[in-house]
Amino acid sequence: MTDPALIGAVFEEAESGCLGLIDETGAPYQTQVNLVWAQGALWFHSGPLGTKIKLIKACPKVHVSVVLASSFVPSYATDPQKPCSATQFFRSVHVKGEAQLVEDLGLKAQILGLLMQKLQPEGGYQPLEQYPSALRSVALVQIIPQEITGKFKFGQNLTAQKRQDLIKTLQESADPRAQEALAWINRLA
Amino acid sequence: MTDPALIGAVFEEAESGCLGLIDETGAPYQTQVNLVWAQGALWFHSGPLGTKIKLIKACPKVHVSVVLASSFVPSYATDPQKPCSATQFFRSVHVKGEAQLVEDLGLKAQILGLLMQKLQPEGGYQPLEQYPSALRSVALVQIIPQEITGKFKFGQNLTAQKRQDLIKTLQESADPRAQEALAWINRLA
Repeated sequence: MTDPALIGAVFEEAESGCLGLIDETGAPYQTQVNLVWAQGALWFHSGPLGTKIKLIKACPKVHVSVVLASSFVPSYATDPQKPCSATQFFRSVHVKGEAQLVEDLGLKAQILGLLMQKLQPEGGYQPLEQYPSALRSVALVQIIPQEITGKFKFGQNLTAQKRQDLIKTLQESADPRAQEALAWINRLA
Repeated sequence: MTDPALIGAVFEEAESGCLGLIDETGAPYQTQVNLVWAQGALWFHSGPLGTKIKLIKACPKVHVSVVLASSFVPSYATDPQKPCSATQFFRSVHVKGEAQLVEDLGLKAQILGLLMQKLQPEGGYQPLEQYPSALRSVALVQIIPQEITGKFKFGQNLTAQKRQDLIKTLQESADPRAQEALAWINRLA
Protein backbone atom coordinates (compact mmCIF):
# COMPACT_ATOMS: atom_id res chain seq x y z
CA MET A 1 0.00 0.00 0.00
CA THR A 2 1.52 3.28 -1.10
CA ASP A 3 -1.37 5.81 -0.82
CA PRO A 4 0.34 9.00 0.44
CA ALA A 5 -2.80 10.20 2.28
CA LEU A 6 -3.20 6.94 4.23
CA ILE A 7 0.54 6.79 4.98
CA GLY A 8 0.63 10.44 6.01
CA ALA A 9 -2.25 9.86 8.42
CA VAL A 10 -0.25 7.11 10.16
CA PHE A 11 2.70 9.48 10.64
CA GLU A 12 0.32 12.15 11.91
CA GLU A 13 -1.53 9.92 14.38
CA ALA A 14 1.50 8.06 15.76
CA GLU A 15 3.45 9.94 18.42
CA SER A 16 6.47 7.73 17.88
CA GLY A 17 8.04 4.96 15.88
CA CYS A 18 10.76 2.37 16.23
CA LEU A 19 14.13 3.43 14.82
CA GLY A 20 16.22 0.45 13.72
CA LEU A 21 19.99 0.80 13.35
CA ILE A 22 23.08 -1.39 13.17
CA ASP A 23 25.39 -1.43 16.19
CA GLU A 24 29.17 -1.51 16.16
CA THR A 25 29.19 -5.34 16.18
CA GLY A 26 26.84 -5.58 13.18
CA ALA A 27 23.89 -6.58 15.38
CA PRO A 28 20.50 -4.87 15.22
CA TYR A 29 19.86 -1.95 17.59
CA GLN A 30 16.62 -0.08 18.01
CA THR A 31 14.94 2.59 20.05
CA GLN A 32 11.61 4.43 20.08
CA VAL A 33 11.63 8.05 18.90
CA ASN A 34 9.01 10.77 18.55
CA LEU A 35 8.70 11.47 14.84
CA VAL A 36 7.38 14.09 12.49
CA TRP A 37 6.86 13.76 8.73
CA ALA A 38 7.73 16.92 6.77
CA GLN A 39 9.28 17.85 3.42
CA GLY A 40 9.16 14.23 2.24
CA ALA A 41 11.27 12.98 5.14
CA LEU A 42 10.93 11.69 8.70
CA TRP A 43 12.65 13.66 11.45
CA PHE A 44 13.50 12.98 15.08
CA HIS A 45 15.60 14.69 17.73
CA SER A 46 17.91 13.36 20.35
CA GLY A 47 20.61 14.24 22.81
CA PRO A 48 23.82 14.86 20.85
CA LEU A 49 25.97 12.20 22.55
CA GLY A 50 23.68 9.19 22.83
CA THR A 51 24.01 5.74 21.30
CA LYS A 52 21.75 6.38 18.32
CA ILE A 53 23.75 9.40 17.15
CA LYS A 54 27.01 7.47 17.52
CA LEU A 55 25.62 4.53 15.53
CA ILE A 56 24.15 6.75 12.79
CA LYS A 57 27.54 8.42 12.32
CA ALA A 58 29.11 4.97 11.86
CA CYS A 59 26.34 3.58 9.65
CA PRO A 60 23.52 5.81 8.35
CA LYS A 61 21.27 2.97 7.13
CA VAL A 62 17.99 3.00 9.04
CA HIS A 63 14.63 1.25 9.07
CA VAL A 64 11.79 2.98 10.86
CA SER A 65 8.48 1.29 11.59
CA VAL A 66 5.43 3.17 12.75
CA VAL A 67 2.66 0.87 13.98
CA LEU A 68 -0.82 1.80 15.11
CA ALA A 69 -2.14 -1.38 16.69
CA SER A 70 -5.87 -1.91 16.32
CA SER A 71 -8.13 -4.65 17.70
CA PHE A 72 -6.86 -8.06 18.58
CA VAL A 73 -9.19 -10.38 16.67
CA PRO A 74 -10.08 -13.54 18.59
CA SER A 75 -10.02 -16.80 16.65
CA TYR A 76 -13.76 -17.39 17.25
CA ALA A 77 -14.54 -14.26 15.25
CA THR A 78 -13.93 -16.30 12.11
CA ASP A 79 -13.62 -19.95 13.27
CA PRO A 80 -15.48 -21.66 16.11
CA GLN A 81 -12.76 -24.24 16.79
CA LYS A 82 -9.30 -23.58 15.33
CA PRO A 83 -7.09 -21.12 17.24
CA CYS A 84 -5.07 -20.37 14.09
CA SER A 85 -7.27 -17.56 12.84
CA ALA A 86 -6.58 -15.32 15.89
CA THR A 87 -4.83 -12.22 14.61
CA GLN A 88 -4.23 -8.55 15.18
CA PHE A 89 -5.40 -5.70 13.02
CA PHE A 90 -3.10 -2.74 12.52
CA ARG A 91 -1.93 0.08 10.31
CA SER A 92 1.81 0.25 9.79
CA VAL A 93 4.32 2.11 7.68
CA HIS A 94 7.89 0.99 7.14
CA VAL A 95 10.55 3.39 5.92
CA LYS A 96 13.97 2.30 4.76
CA GLY A 97 16.38 5.09 4.25
CA GLU A 98 19.43 6.98 5.24
CA ALA A 99 19.88 9.21 8.28
CA GLN A 100 21.59 12.60 8.16
CA LEU A 101 22.41 14.93 11.00
CA VAL A 102 21.04 18.43 10.53
CA GLU A 103 23.31 21.30 11.51
CA ASP A 104 21.44 24.33 10.13
CA LEU A 105 19.89 26.15 13.11
CA GLY A 106 17.05 27.65 11.07
CA LEU A 107 16.01 24.24 9.75
CA LYS A 108 16.31 22.77 13.25
CA ALA A 109 13.98 25.44 14.64
CA GLN A 110 11.51 24.90 11.81
CA ILE A 111 11.33 21.10 12.09
CA LEU A 112 11.33 21.01 15.89
CA GLY A 113 8.52 23.58 15.69
CA LEU A 114 6.54 21.13 13.53
CA LEU A 115 7.23 18.33 16.02
CA MET A 116 5.96 20.54 18.86
CA GLN A 117 2.89 21.51 16.80
CA LYS A 118 2.13 17.84 16.25
CA LEU A 119 2.59 16.70 19.85
CA GLN A 120 1.52 19.83 21.72
CA PRO A 121 -0.99 21.54 19.41
CA GLU A 122 -2.38 23.62 22.26
CA GLY A 123 0.88 25.64 22.37
CA GLY A 124 2.12 26.95 25.71
CA TYR A 125 5.75 27.68 24.81
CA GLN A 126 7.88 30.43 23.28
CA PRO A 127 9.05 30.11 19.64
CA LEU A 128 12.02 27.76 19.27
CA GLU A 129 14.08 30.48 17.56
CA GLN A 130 14.41 32.13 20.97
CA TYR A 131 16.63 29.28 22.22
CA PRO A 132 19.69 29.19 19.92
CA SER A 133 21.93 27.52 22.47
CA ALA A 134 19.38 24.71 23.00
CA LEU A 135 19.04 24.41 19.21
CA ARG A 136 22.80 24.08 18.88
CA SER A 137 23.03 21.37 21.53
CA VAL A 138 20.10 19.18 20.44
CA ALA A 139 20.68 16.70 17.62
CA LEU A 140 18.13 16.67 14.79
CA VAL A 141 18.15 13.77 12.35
CA GLN A 142 16.54 13.67 8.91
CA ILE A 143 15.64 10.26 7.52
CA ILE A 144 15.64 10.40 3.73
CA PRO A 145 13.36 7.60 2.55
CA GLN A 146 14.53 5.17 -0.10
CA GLU A 147 11.44 2.94 0.29
CA ILE A 148 8.12 3.56 2.01
CA THR A 149 5.64 0.72 2.47
CA GLY A 150 2.29 0.81 4.19
CA LYS A 151 0.60 -2.33 5.45
CA PHE A 152 -2.96 -2.09 6.68
CA LYS A 153 -4.45 -5.33 8.00
CA PHE A 154 -8.21 -5.33 8.51
CA GLY A 155 -9.38 -8.69 7.18
CA GLN A 156 -9.22 -7.69 3.52
CA ASN A 157 -8.46 -11.30 2.53
CA LEU A 158 -11.52 -12.82 4.24
CA THR A 159 -14.48 -14.34 2.42
CA ALA A 160 -17.74 -12.37 2.56
CA GLN A 161 -19.17 -14.82 5.11
CA LYS A 162 -16.14 -14.65 7.41
CA ARG A 163 -16.12 -10.86 7.16
CA GLN A 164 -19.75 -10.79 8.32
CA ASP A 165 -18.86 -13.09 11.26
CA LEU A 166 -15.92 -10.84 12.11
CA ILE A 167 -18.03 -7.67 12.02
CA LYS A 168 -20.56 -9.28 14.37
CA THR A 169 -17.83 -10.22 16.89
CA LEU A 170 -16.27 -6.76 16.78
CA GLN A 171 -19.67 -5.10 17.20
CA GLU A 172 -20.03 -7.04 20.46
CA SER A 173 -16.39 -6.56 21.54
CA ALA A 174 -15.33 -4.74 24.70
CA ASP A 175 -12.00 -3.79 23.05
CA PRO A 176 -11.98 0.02 22.85
CA ARG A 177 -10.29 -0.27 19.44
CA ALA A 178 -13.13 -2.33 17.91
CA GLN A 179 -15.07 0.65 16.56
CA GLU A 180 -12.03 1.98 14.75
CA ALA A 181 -11.35 -1.51 13.35
CA LEU A 182 -14.93 -1.72 12.04
CA ALA A 183 -14.52 1.61 10.27
CA TRP A 184 -11.32 0.37 8.58
CA ILE A 185 -12.92 -2.95 7.60
CA ASN A 186 -15.65 -1.04 5.78
CA ARG A 187 -13.25 1.48 4.26
CA LEU A 188 -10.83 -1.13 2.88
CA ALA A 189 -13.35 -3.83 1.89
CA MET B 1 16.20 -1.19 35.47
CA THR B 2 16.33 -4.95 35.83
CA ASP B 3 13.46 -5.77 38.24
CA PRO B 4 12.03 -9.06 36.85
CA ALA B 5 8.50 -8.29 38.12
CA LEU B 6 8.36 -4.87 36.42
CA ILE B 7 9.89 -6.27 33.23
CA GLY B 8 7.56 -9.28 33.23
CA ALA B 9 4.56 -6.96 33.58
CA VAL B 10 5.62 -5.10 30.40
CA PHE B 11 5.80 -8.39 28.47
CA GLU B 12 2.40 -9.38 29.88
CA GLU B 13 0.65 -6.08 29.11
CA ALA B 14 2.11 -5.55 25.63
CA GLU B 15 0.42 -7.50 22.86
CA SER B 16 3.41 -7.06 20.61
CA GLY B 17 6.93 -5.78 20.23
CA CYS B 18 9.28 -4.68 17.50
CA LEU B 19 11.62 -7.40 16.25
CA GLY B 20 14.87 -6.00 14.87
CA LEU B 21 16.97 -8.08 12.48
CA ILE B 22 19.75 -7.60 9.93
CA ASP B 23 18.84 -7.97 6.26
CA GLU B 24 20.92 -9.62 3.55
CA THR B 25 22.64 -6.31 2.73
CA GLY B 26 23.63 -5.66 6.35
CA ALA B 27 20.94 -3.00 6.79
CA PRO B 28 18.46 -2.99 9.68
CA TYR B 29 15.11 -4.73 9.18
CA GLN B 30 12.23 -4.81 11.61
CA THR B 31 8.68 -5.95 12.01
CA GLN B 32 6.06 -6.03 14.75
CA VAL B 33 5.28 -9.44 16.29
CA ASN B 34 2.92 -10.69 18.97
CA LEU B 35 5.09 -11.93 21.82
CA VAL B 36 4.87 -14.11 24.88
CA TRP B 37 7.44 -14.38 27.68
CA ALA B 38 7.91 -17.93 29.03
CA GLN B 39 10.71 -20.13 30.34
CA GLY B 40 13.12 -17.20 30.46
CA ALA B 41 12.72 -16.44 26.75
CA LEU B 42 10.58 -14.42 24.35
CA TRP B 43 8.65 -16.33 21.70
CA PHE B 44 6.80 -15.36 18.54
CA HIS B 45 5.26 -17.23 15.64
CA SER B 46 5.20 -16.58 11.94
CA GLY B 47 4.48 -18.05 8.56
CA PRO B 48 7.33 -20.42 7.70
CA LEU B 49 8.46 -18.73 4.48
CA GLY B 50 8.41 -15.03 5.28
CA THR B 51 11.22 -12.50 5.33
CA LYS B 52 11.86 -12.66 9.07
CA ILE B 53 12.41 -16.43 9.08
CA LYS B 54 14.75 -16.17 6.08
CA LEU B 55 16.75 -13.39 7.78
CA ILE B 56 16.94 -15.23 11.12
CA LYS B 57 18.32 -18.28 9.36
CA ALA B 58 21.04 -16.11 7.82
CA CYS B 59 21.78 -14.11 10.99
CA PRO B 60 20.20 -15.05 14.34
CA LYS B 61 21.13 -11.83 16.16
CA VAL B 62 18.00 -9.99 17.25
CA HIS B 63 16.99 -6.94 19.24
CA VAL B 64 13.40 -6.79 20.47
CA SER B 65 11.88 -3.69 22.00
CA VAL B 66 8.58 -3.69 23.80
CA VAL B 67 7.26 -0.22 24.48
CA LEU B 68 4.17 0.79 26.42
CA ALA B 69 3.76 4.48 25.63
CA SER B 70 2.28 6.52 28.44
CA SER B 71 1.31 10.22 28.55
CA PHE B 72 2.90 12.79 26.35
CA VAL B 73 4.07 15.45 28.80
CA PRO B 74 3.64 19.01 27.49
CA SER B 75 6.52 21.40 28.06
CA TYR B 76 4.36 23.72 30.20
CA ALA B 77 3.97 20.94 32.76
CA THR B 78 7.46 21.77 34.00
CA ASP B 79 8.45 25.02 32.23
CA PRO B 80 6.18 27.96 31.34
CA GLN B 81 8.31 29.10 28.40
CA LYS B 82 10.91 26.68 27.02
CA PRO B 83 9.61 23.95 24.67
CA CYS B 84 12.62 21.73 25.47
CA SER B 85 11.06 20.01 28.47
CA ALA B 86 8.24 18.42 26.43
CA THR B 87 8.70 14.66 26.66
CA GLN B 88 6.96 11.32 26.62
CA PHE B 89 6.60 8.93 29.50
CA PHE B 90 6.84 5.21 28.81
CA ARG B 91 7.79 1.78 30.05
CA SER B 92 10.07 -0.16 27.75
CA VAL B 93 12.09 -3.34 27.75
CA HIS B 94 14.89 -4.09 25.33
CA VAL B 95 16.10 -7.63 24.72
CA LYS B 96 19.25 -8.45 22.83
CA GLY B 97 19.66 -12.09 22.03
CA GLU B 98 19.70 -14.90 19.59
CA ALA B 99 16.76 -16.39 17.71
CA GLN B 100 16.24 -20.12 17.29
CA LEU B 101 13.60 -21.91 15.29
CA VAL B 102 11.64 -24.44 17.34
CA GLU B 103 10.86 -27.74 15.65
CA ASP B 104 9.47 -29.81 18.56
CA LEU B 105 5.69 -30.06 18.05
CA GLY B 106 4.96 -30.53 21.78
CA LEU B 107 6.89 -27.39 22.67
CA LYS B 108 5.21 -25.51 19.81
CA ALA B 109 1.76 -26.48 21.11
CA GLN B 110 2.72 -25.48 24.66
CA ILE B 111 4.14 -22.04 23.79
CA LEU B 112 1.46 -21.18 21.25
CA GLY B 113 -1.06 -22.18 23.92
CA LEU B 114 0.53 -19.62 26.26
CA LEU B 115 0.38 -16.99 23.52
CA MET B 116 -3.33 -17.74 23.01
CA GLN B 117 -3.94 -17.62 26.78
CA LYS B 118 -2.30 -14.21 26.90
CA LEU B 119 -4.12 -12.68 23.93
CA GLN B 120 -7.43 -14.53 24.11
CA PRO B 121 -7.88 -15.37 27.82
CA GLU B 122 -11.61 -15.95 27.36
CA GLY B 123 -10.86 -19.16 25.38
CA GLY B 124 -13.17 -20.13 22.54
CA TYR B 125 -10.93 -22.59 20.69
CA GLN B 126 -9.92 -26.26 20.76
CA PRO B 127 -6.54 -27.26 22.29
CA LEU B 128 -3.66 -26.65 19.92
CA GLU B 129 -2.53 -30.29 20.15
CA GLN B 130 -5.55 -31.16 17.98
CA TYR B 131 -3.96 -29.41 14.99
CA PRO B 132 -0.65 -31.20 14.30
CA SER B 133 -0.50 -30.23 10.65
CA ALA B 134 -1.00 -26.54 11.51
CA LEU B 135 1.66 -26.90 14.22
CA ARG B 136 4.05 -28.38 11.69
CA SER B 137 3.52 -25.59 9.19
CA VAL B 138 3.71 -22.60 11.55
CA ALA B 139 7.15 -21.30 12.49
CA LEU B 140 7.82 -20.72 16.19
CA VAL B 141 10.89 -18.73 17.19
CA GLN B 142 12.54 -18.62 20.61
CA ILE B 143 14.59 -15.55 21.47
CA ILE B 144 17.24 -16.47 24.01
CA PRO B 145 18.11 -13.25 25.85
CA GLN B 146 21.72 -12.22 26.27
CA GLU B 147 20.81 -8.84 27.74
CA ILE B 148 17.52 -7.51 29.10
CA THR B 149 17.15 -3.83 29.99
CA GLY B 150 14.09 -2.05 31.25
CA LYS B 151 13.70 1.70 30.97
CA PHE B 152 10.80 3.36 32.74
CA LYS B 153 10.54 7.12 32.25
CA PHE B 154 8.16 8.91 34.59
CA GLY B 155 10.00 12.09 35.62
CA GLN B 156 12.26 10.37 38.16
CA ASN B 157 15.00 12.96 37.52
CA LEU B 158 12.82 16.01 38.23
CA THR B 159 13.23 18.28 41.23
CA ALA B 160 10.50 18.05 43.88
CA GLN B 161 9.02 21.37 42.70
CA LYS B 162 8.92 20.34 39.03
CA ARG B 163 7.40 16.98 39.99
CA GLN B 164 4.60 18.80 41.82
CA ASP B 165 4.00 21.01 38.75
CA LEU B 166 3.95 17.92 36.55
CA ILE B 167 1.47 16.10 38.79
CA LYS B 168 -0.84 19.12 38.70
CA THR B 169 -0.76 19.26 34.88
CA LEU B 170 -1.41 15.51 34.55
CA GLN B 171 -4.28 15.69 37.04
CA GLU B 172 -5.95 18.23 34.73
CA SER B 173 -4.98 16.40 31.51
CA ALA B 174 -7.50 15.01 29.04
CA ASP B 175 -4.97 12.34 27.95
CA PRO B 176 -6.53 8.97 28.87
CA ARG B 177 -3.05 7.77 29.87
CA ALA B 178 -2.55 10.51 32.48
CA GLN B 179 -3.97 8.50 35.40
CA GLU B 180 -1.65 5.61 34.71
CA ALA B 181 1.28 8.02 34.41
CA LEU B 182 0.41 9.54 37.80
CA ALA B 183 0.39 6.10 39.39
CA TRP B 184 3.86 5.38 37.98
CA ILE B 185 5.22 8.77 39.06
CA ASN B 186 4.21 7.97 42.63
CA ARG B 187 5.43 4.40 42.46
CA LEU B 188 8.88 5.27 41.10
CA ALA B 189 9.45 8.53 43.00
